[in-house]
Amino acid sequence: MALLVRGALLEGEAKDILIEGGRIAAVGDAVDPAARATEEAIEEIDGRGMAALPSLVNAHAHSAMTLLRGTAEDLELDDWLKKAVWPREAKLDEEDIYWGTRLAALEMIATGTTLCQDMYLNPSASARAARDSGMRFAVNYSLVDAMDEAVGEAQRRACEAFFDAAPDFGPLVSFSLAAHSIYATSEGSLRWLAAFARERGLGLHIHLAETGTERRACLEDRGMSPAAYLDSLGFLGPDLFAAHALWLDERDFDLLAARGVTLVHNPVSNMKLASGPAYDYEAARRRGIRTLLGTDGAASNNGLDLFADMKVAALLQKQHYRDPRRLPLGELFDAATRSGHEAFGDGAGVLAEGYAADLILVDLDSPGMRPMHDLRANLVYAGGGAAVDTVICAGKVLMRAGKIEGAEEVRREASHRARALIERCGTPR
Amino acid sequence: MALLVRGALLEGEAKDILIEGGRIAAVGDAVDPAARATEEAIEEIDGRGMAALPSLVNAHAHSAMTLLRGTAEDLELDDWLKKAVWPREAKLDEEDIYWGTRLAALEMIATGTTLCQDMYLNPSASARAARDSGMRFAVNYSLVDAMDEAVGEAQRRACEAFFDAAPDFGPLVSFSLAAHSIYATSEGSLRWLAAFARERGLGLHIHLAETGTERRACLEDRGMSPAAYLDSLGFLGPDLFAAHALWLDERDFDLLAARGVTLVHNPVSNMKLASGPAYDYEAARRRGIRTLLGTDGAASNNGLDLFADMKVAALLQKQHYRDPRRLPLGELFDAATRSGHEAFGDGAGVLAEGYAADLILVDLDSPGMRPMHDLRANLVYAGGGAAVDTVICAGKVLMRAGKIEGAEEVRREASHRARALIERCGTPR
Repeated sequence: MALLVRGALLEGEAKDILIEGGRIAAVGDAVDPAARATEEAIEEIDGRGMAALPSLVNAHAHSAMTLLRGTAEDLELDDWLKKAVWPREAKLDEEDIYWGTRLAALEMIATGTTLCQDMYLNPSASARAARDSGMRFAVNYSLVDAMDEAVGEAQRRACEAFFDAAPDFGPLVSFSLAAHSIYATSEGSLRWLAAFARERGLGLHIHLAETGTERRACLEDRGMSPAAYLDSLGFLGPDLFAAHALWLDERDFDLLAARGVTLVHNPVSNMKLASGPAYDYEAARRRGIRTLLGTDGAASNNGLDLFADMKVAALLQKQHYRDPRRLPLGELFDAATRSGHEAFGDGAGVLAEGYAADLILVDLDSPGMRPMHDLRANLVYAGGGAAVDTVICAGKVLMRAGKIEGAEEVRREASHRARALIERCGTPR
Repeated sequence: MALLVRGALLEGEAKDILIEGGRIAAVGDAVDPAARATEEAIEEIDGRGMAALPSLVNAHAHSAMTLLRGTAEDLELDDWLKKAVWPREAKLDEEDIYWGTRLAALEMIATGTTLCQDMYLNPSASARAARDSGMRFAVNYSLVDAMDEAVGEAQRRACEAFFDAAPDFGPLVSFSLAAHSIYATSEGSLRWLAAFARERGLGLHIHLAETGTERRACLEDRGMSPAAYLDSLGFLGPDLFAAHALWLDERDFDLLAARGVTLVHNPVSNMKLASGPAYDYEAARRRGIRTLLGTDGAASNNGLDLFADMKVAALLQKQHYRDPRRLPLGELFDAATRSGHEAFGDGAGVLAEGYAADLILVDLDSPGMRPMHDLRANLVYAGGGAAVDTVICAGKVLMRAGKIEGAEEVRREASHRARALIERCGTPR
């Protein structure tokens, strides 16, 4: 099915957008669908009263943690991890992860995200949910061996076997590699992941310098910072996404810049867990380090509406550095859209001919969207996620007029599984 | 018209809520409308799949600034005020203020707020909009004399005449007094406002210690802090709402506690304008000082969804003080609901028999609301404003299924006036 979006505002002017074969075939004032190359049936979408924008990219999430949303409030990090999160995660089964990921995808789609990088416990279950959601997912195969090289060796073999089997969950689901962190993934596994990633051309992902404890322990035990330690193992490179990146000094930033690493900022999670100082966006920007945005998991956010994270990211930069000019709208949108699509290579991120058709239509009658002096400011600061009306991913409509097919089943199943999980583990605090 | 809300979740259990004469007449498992005292017609609202909560109170807003939303992004405070805000405010007419306030009310209703304290330029225009919106408003008559005692004297006479005329905009609109600030309202006006407020039993409102400049100038010029200066004029008292309150020391907090002042925290505006350190919520709480929440105006927020401000308030406390236990959900909800209603004396804030019927129904199928381990956490951290389905104020339905009567006209008129304003003033940056 080809699509023709009629009369949506694109950078302030009403345009038609023709979509064929998953790509934007034309953008213009009055696109004539009869002049198309193919004979595909065409569906028209009335875009009047709406604005068209590239969809958002959530570059760091633990999607199935939606099942734990609201079970770990106002806790110290140690209690959060050891009492609220880990014991429950230990009891998640494959179907829990499937439905938790579906619930996450539902919320991401509803708020304008079409691509998510997902680091979690069972890549097959996550990938199946990803495929069924219709969104793009970069699903990590993640190694967490609790620093035990024997466990690590077993995990590495399983990981290799997983990729040798050439898992295929459709064209929108890709796989990449992750280490949880330098404190939960052994040196052997980190070295192996770096080599395996380059051998197979797979992306890499890690939690880097999220807490002061991580940095202090690394300096004590290894005599170098977490970034320098990873570099000594050959882990840093342009294929690496390093999430959080709060406890870095100038030399770490220099090193990450030299290696071409992409950083993923998770402002809400960092603030909610009081993980440390503000992410030093300017230090990254000055060096040409790419910064993307992530929601992190729903146990530490608790929403997956990336527009809300954009708002908090900008507010934190402005407040923390006492400069209201920090992280301006243009850079914020670039991080959440164009840069993200570019980093994951999905061909989207710009609404122009030839780009992948991953876009959103925003209802300009939604609260906060009027007047429209600055659409981007309205979207970020006045509730853009709730204004998303239509979501198109790779040329397919995932949401229209706020409705997503199968949403009710996902909510029901995920809610049921979340309740059952808590019953298995004891009631939430 | 009496109302019967059927089967909404109230603290986790499905209940019926009967509303008569603007008050909650009964809350129970199966309320029998036939057993009522009056013969009023009754309207039923199906509350199944929704949760009922007290509505929110926005204790510090400049409502008509919605017309300026998105015209002052990423600017230094001085540019924000002198280039983006003041020149445009100087050109607002009464009808602009009317429609800007209507637009603000539309957004507040849509996101669950039923009471707003509004400090702006024309109390009659604001009050007329307030009345027509159906929300409760505490409209300030605000003195801003630019430190000119002659101007101040004229304003004081006009203010007295305004109140002598006993303005009446219906039972939901009350009037109170405001000084803009210690740097924009003369000593004579501050003294007069304090005396006039107590003589007439009117509330008081002021911007207090919002910026470091305000504090430094006051210390230099008057040898005392802004709070101490106001106390020397007899301005501090339990009838005073002091907004922002960022640049306070321990002695200021002691003084404000001793005088019974209520503080209003505006986290998003403070962060966006980089106004200073984080509001020291704990310093206030420890002393029993009441803290309420405000959005401030849409030129510095830019939304009026108080749930978003609740999220940012909690995140800022947790991050700034490096303690994830700060500003927990119970206290956050108290500040935004019960405490706010109590401070303004509208009789609402608790869903129990005898309280004023100001409440919201939240759609539990909205993105972010599942699973429902902790409804309050979902509302604050996962987009509560967008989940509001039905809003009842003083027993009248202002929104149902997301629809507000007259919304289209308000959006159209306000957008038109906002555009015309910018055309009069030159294009936004």
